[in-house]
Amino acid sequence: MPQPKKASESDVTMTEMVLPNDTNTLNNLMGGRLLHWMDICAAISAQKHSNRIVVTASVDNVSFTEPIKLGNIVTMKARVTRSFNSSMEVFLEVWAEDIPAGHRISTNSAFYTFVAVDQNGRPIEVPELVPETDADKELYKSALRRRQLRLVLAGRIKPEEATELKALFDLK
Amino acid sequence: MPQPKKASESDVTMTEMVLPNDTNTLNNLMGGRLLHWMDICAAISAQKHSNRIVVTASVDNVSFTEPIKLGNIVTMKARVTRSFNSSMEVFLEVWAEDIPAGHRISTNSAFYTFVAVDQNGRPIEVPELVPETDADKELYKSALRRRQLRLVLAGRIKPEEATELKALFDLK
Amino acid sequence: MPQPKKASESDVTMTEMVLPNDTNTLNNLMGGRLLHWMDICAAISAQKHSNRIVVTASVDNVSFTEPIKLGNIVTMKARVTRSFNSSMEVFLEVWAEDIPAGHRISTNSAFYTFVAVDQNGRPIEVPELVPETDADKELYKSALRRRQLRLVLAGRIKPEEATELKALFDLK
Amino acid sequence: MPQPKKASESDVTMTEMVLPNDTNTLNNLMGGRLLHWMDICAAISAQKHSNRIVVTASVDNVSFTEPIKLGNIVTMKARVTRSFNSSMEVFLEVWAEDIPAGHRISTNSAFYTFVAVDQNGRPIEVPELVPETDADKELYKSALRRRQLRLVLAGRIKPEEATELKALFDLK
Amino acid sequence: MPQPKKASESDVTMTEMVLPNDTNTLNNLMGGRLLHWMDICAAISAQKHSNRIVVTASVDNVSFTEPIKLGNIVTMKARVTRSFNSSMEVFLEVWAEDIPAGHRISTNSAFYTFVAVDQNGRPIEVPELVPETDADKELYKSALRRRQLRLVLAGRIKPEEATELKALFDLK
Amino acid sequence: MPQPKKASESDVTMTEMVLPNDTNTLNNLMGGRLLHWMDICAAISAQKHSNRIVVTASVDNVSFTEPIKLGNIVTMKARVTRSFNSSMEVFLEVWAEDIPAGHRISTNSAFYTFVAVDQNGRPIEVPELVPETDADKELYKSALRRRQLRLVLAGRIKPEEATELKALFDLK
Repeated sequence: MPQPKKASESDVTMTEMVLPNDTNTLNNLMGGRLLHWMDICAAISAQKHSNRIVVTASVDNVSFTEPIKLGNIVTMKARVTRSFNSSMEVFLEVWAEDIPAGHRISTNSAFYTFVAVDQNGRPIEVPELVPETDADKELYKSALRRRQLRLVLAGRIKPEEATELKALFDLK
Repeated sequence: MPQPKKASESDVTMTEMVLPNDTNTLNNLMGGRLLHWMDICAAISAQKHSNRIVVTASVDNVSFTEPIKLGNIVTMKARVTRSFNSSMEVFLEVWAEDIPAGHRISTNSAFYTFVAVDQNGRPIEVPELVPETDADKELYKSALRRRQLRLVLAGRIKPEEATELKALFDLK
Repeated sequence: MPQPKKASESDVTMTEMVLPNDTNTLNNLMGGRLLHWMDICAAISAQKHSNRIVVTASVDNVSFTEPIKLGNIVTMKARVTRSFNSSMEVFLEVWAEDIPAGHRISTNSAFYTFVAVDQNGRPIEVPELVPETDADKELYKSALRRRQLRLVLAGRIKPEEATELKALFDLK
Repeated sequence: MPQPKKASESDVTMTEMVLPNDTNTLNNLMGGRLLHWMDICAAISAQKHSNRIVVTASVDNVSFTEPIKLGNIVTMKARVTRSFNSSMEVFLEVWAEDIPAGHRISTNSAFYTFVAVDQNGRPIEVPELVPETDADKELYKSALRRRQLRLVLAGRIKPEEATELKALFDLK
Repeated sequence: MPQPKKASESDVTMTEMVLPNDTNTLNNLMGGRLLHWMDICAAISAQKHSNRIVVTASVDNVSFTEPIKLGNIVTMKARVTRSFNSSMEVFLEVWAEDIPAGHRISTNSAFYTFVAVDQNGRPIEVPELVPETDADKELYKSALRRRQLRLVLAGRIKPEEATELKALFDLK
Repeated sequence: MPQPKKASESDVTMTEMVLPNDTNTLNNLMGGRLLHWMDICAAISAQKHSNRIVVTASVDNVSFTEPIKLGNIVTMKARVTRSFNSSMEVFLEVWAEDIPAGHRISTNSAFYTFVAVDQNGRPIEVPELVPETDADKELYKSALRRRQLRLVLAGRIKPEEATELKALFDLK
């Protein structure tokens, strides 16, 4: 079994400039284009944790509240939050910056999960994740609840089995 | 207020061929690339319902269980399930086909939401959606529950207020 | 020899959004970009009829009479009209839609031909095409005349041998 | 009315390297991708003759007989053959070269037509074309016949009016 | 005149995954593609220092000694080294990583220069750069010599006027 | 050892139209995009001289003095200037043309060097270059000086060994 690895070893920073083909007719970045960039950034983070080829297993609910404009600089930061056998959850934060205007905002966050696979595409065990900061520890703990929500939404466990998730609803 | 429109008026079919740059080192379609295509397909569907420019508001949890290979044909079908003031929920189904092998599988489904906006990017009212088939009616009804889950996950309502969502957990 | 297949089994619908890089300095879709999309759409249709890898053999005269604007939605529908040994003729129709303006026009039609090949690129027999609708039957019949025109234009048969084509000029 | 211009003033040479995304699953250049490159090359030639913005009006029958491989160098040469009021016919020749193998073949030729337009997209008169070489003169003369074929195929003149075209069939 | 800014305020990290279309027939990243990414990364750094739109003024000699493979992760780090009126020199370092192989190498470094411009494209003054680390200070000092070399190579000063540059050749 | 080849046998002309995604927020071609095109053009020239796969070894200082606008036509001409065992220096000139405005300017020139490699990526000997015109002969001769500058800048020879380069500074 592979040696546990620290959360910070999986840090990835990715920077993109919003070009015309990335935008809709209002000159705003299209949501799908951002999801594409986030998937690549998160995949590299999962690769760094596992030293394996990884395939996207899921993306959790992502909401888009702030328009990102043509010419803006998009910065994404990704870090693995927890591993489960062959899968890893990655947390991403996204900022958009209009540099000439001196204006930078937090625009999105997301959780992607990846499965590490061997050359034949079969799942393979990954190192345990060692959380470091307080934020890491909080994300590590809540990863279980998000995992249950994914399993419920995918119809793979029944809602009543999702004991951690029920806590989200403050129910006994 | 705009006239209600039928679900079928928002139907969109999109077809893509998986090219080398869409794939990872296992020659499988990258998840983010698919999310990008799905966003465009769903956005066109929401445009057709609203006859407006639309911006992506959110994508719900999407899981990727089946690898889609280089050279496969990806077919996406999108249809609006329900509208709420200026927002619309769109349901997508995705199939991948290896035509020479005569092999076609259902690979994903997803819910995207969009907001209709005017030329200045301000939200604007959209027509009500009239479900037609039994499947439409089921999706129309459950749209409320999914909407509550989005609001809870975005921290915009408290879990205990999500009355529809609680039903998912079979709780009284 | 493969079983005959119905025309409708080869139906393909492809939808594209016109993005900035697809346009010229008047913000109109470039003709070559549309020819590229049409080739992919028609190739998928020929693949569906033959269940083979296909290569483009020719495109007939295409004319561009209506400008298609940036942000328009382009819809293409393709269907095989007839097969000849290892080759297939595909008919495409193209519509452009400015959805916010509620404006949809027929912009182009075209005939592409494809050759089905095996893994080594050698031509291989394809199923006969069974026309279904009246339009299918008309296209099936006139396919012979178009084929003769292609052979004359390619210098592979002499004009006086093109008996079907002469009919186009109403000559005895 | 603008001054006549020589054929050679419209010469354009374009060179492209065949990259993975340009190819099908046999690693051959897709026909539509080549049509896209040819359209850009021919449009630049028509721009040079007219010193105007140009839009594609049509492409004549193009046949693809030789596969062009991944990594090949594609060279296109374009030259205006004749102008008609606001439209121009451009002749293109295409070669593919496998340089390490020392292998170069002629793969395609094509006729594209363009219309010169002003900033509002309205057709505008272009200079007459002065053919120079014997090949230019032959293409200049036969341009009339090809123009009639386009008009017949577009249903804009009746076959019996296409006097030049009939000559193609050696009919009195 | 704008306030001086620290070198670290201009730090940019950009990460790219090498995809098929970025590679040559040996599956190595093409040099020009890397130069393109480096230009974007360096431009963002110059934007951050100046809070202005910037245009590339020059790139100094770049050598490519290590092949970067398909699927590798390329990381670029950029930082402004010194400003001169309206221009800025940016230093970039590039690493390539084969994550599954646990192999990371330094592949390139480069100096790009940019000019800050206003909305009409006219040069505009930028803040002075305050070097922080010893490496910053060394780069700040040697920037003068590199600037002289650029001016000599561009034929804008005579070699004998390049007093700093002569020092490179250890000449009195 | 391969037969010497004439300079003109390596001539390559490449033409590109500046599309929206190639431009910055001032609608000017980005420098890195041009460097990418120049690398491909120069690589084809080196391939033609050597009939080998080639990899970029270096690009010398390139300066960008003239903005190139959206919609402009960029023409690049490349020619090998000299070979050294397995490496070749290529000289490129770049012009930008606003055809409707009848305005054409010389915008850049550059020297790229390439190494010819076999299928395993190992350097392999290339033909000697035979300069033809006076300009060829001047570039052939000065290639030695540029090569020394590259070696000095790469830290592979000491400045005092760069005898040819010292001549640039008119020093004894």
